[in-house]
Amino acid sequence: MAEQKTAENVVFIGVKPVMNYVLAVITQFNQGINEITLKARGKAISRAVDVAEIVRNRFLPNMVVKNISIGTETMQAEGGTTNVSTIEIVLGKGQ
Amino acid sequence: MAEQKTAENVVFIGVKPVMNYVLAVITQFNQGINEITLKARGKAISRAVDVAEIVRNRFLPNMVVKNISIGTETMQAEGGTTNVSTIEIVLGKGQ
Repeated sequence: MAEQKTAENVVFIGVKPVMNYVLAVITQFNQGINEITLKARGKAISRAVDVAEIVRNRFLPNMVVKNISIGTETMQAEGGTTNVSTIEIVLGKGQ
Repeated sequence: MAEQKTAENVVFIGVKPVMNYVLAVITQFNQGINEITLKARGKAISRAVDVAEIVRNRFLPNMVVKNISIGTETMQAEGGTTNVSTIEIVLGKGQ
């Protein structure tokens, strides 16, 4: 029986409306997953923070932010490479 | 002799170009301050991450991210209140 398993329970935050990602996170937690990592880069970083905050404050108050890390990725752009910032927010059940 | 002291050595990240804030952070570190907090809200959150990454990767490689926290602030808007996400990134000298 194939379990629906995204890599390491990661939700990639992109350009869709915030609530799409909030729903994705809630759905995964309701399937019994204990920890979800939100990943975003560039301008989507602020949306990733919105998703984490909305999930915690409005829907799943027993979830806590377990870790936040930031980094830099090098991407291909016209005429060379460019650097883009990244964020990873780990949400999980509190003690 | 009055020391130039912003509250808790905080740099507020807003809508100016990223390099303005990078320069503000570097200037403060060069004045001997050991820890600086970058604060931003809403869409400026991704710019705050950019500032932290550029300072660390390009200018002050011995600085590390000591802590990152996120939160929510309620703001007055037309016809009521609205929630906005916030971030605080603490940069300091590594061990």
